[in-house]
Amino acid sequence: MTSDILSKESVDSYFEAWKTNDKDLFLSVFSDDAIWEDPIGSPPHSGKAQIEEFWDQAHSDPNGTLNPKIHRSVFIGNEAMVSFTMEVRGQSGGMDLEVTDFFKVNSNGKIILARAFWDASCITPVL
Amino acid sequence: MTSDILSKESVDSYFEAWKTNDKDLFLSVFSDDAIWEDPIGSPPHSGKAQIEEFWDQAHSDPNGTLNPKIHRSVFIGNEAMVSFTMEVRGQSGGMDLEVTDFFKVNSNGKIILARAFWDASCITPVL
Repeated sequence: MTSDILSKESVDSYFEAWKTNDKDLFLSVFSDDAIWEDPIGSPPHSGKAQIEEFWDQAHSDPNGTLNPKIHRSVFIGNEAMVSFTMEVRGQSGGMDLEVTDFFKVNSNGKIILARAFWDASCITPVL
Repeated sequence: MTSDILSKESVDSYFEAWKTNDKDLFLSVFSDDAIWEDPIGSPPHSGKAQIEEFWDQAHSDPNGTLNPKIHRSVFIGNEAMVSFTMEVRGQSGGMDLEVTDFFKVNSNGKIILARAFWDASCITPVL
């Protein structure tokens, strides 16, 4: 077993950033060359500029909220797995999205890889 | 999005093998050079011989049962994510183990990588 856990601080901050809509905090947890696949199977977002674009796109509805409710977190060495429900809400309803996220951090604890597993079966519309 | 799902047949058989205690079926879903990390952070089992050893070790209690109850499966291309409770039971009790498994298959659909995310926080003793 790996005794040093490198992944917890950045991954905790990642979810805190979603909860509090804090873009600066969000961008601070990634390495410059990070890759983010969300969902897996779609074109990955490579580097901070593309990651910022994805964040902006997710927050394009000024009346929308994105609230992750964490169900389980496992932190091992430089990796982490977090399962959560992303509560996506807008003016005219929204959806609950069941996501399982895998994270890998570098030796500075910055996220270098984030991979979100979800597909259509993970979506529940909320009216 | 990837339209061809390569991972489903082998991963479904993987869980069927645990449920029915079918070692031959179990070994048939892996490629010869497969790597299995269970849990992540422990030394990986490399190749079929080591994978067989791990299966035998898990089944060393003749009165024991290992029953996976699947909560969620996501199959995308040559990858899959399955979260489940492994109900481990023996003569004197057992435990429920909450596992999130990540799988990757090769072009023949055989599992080349299986990575099980769990730690002490995922264990509930059953008396």
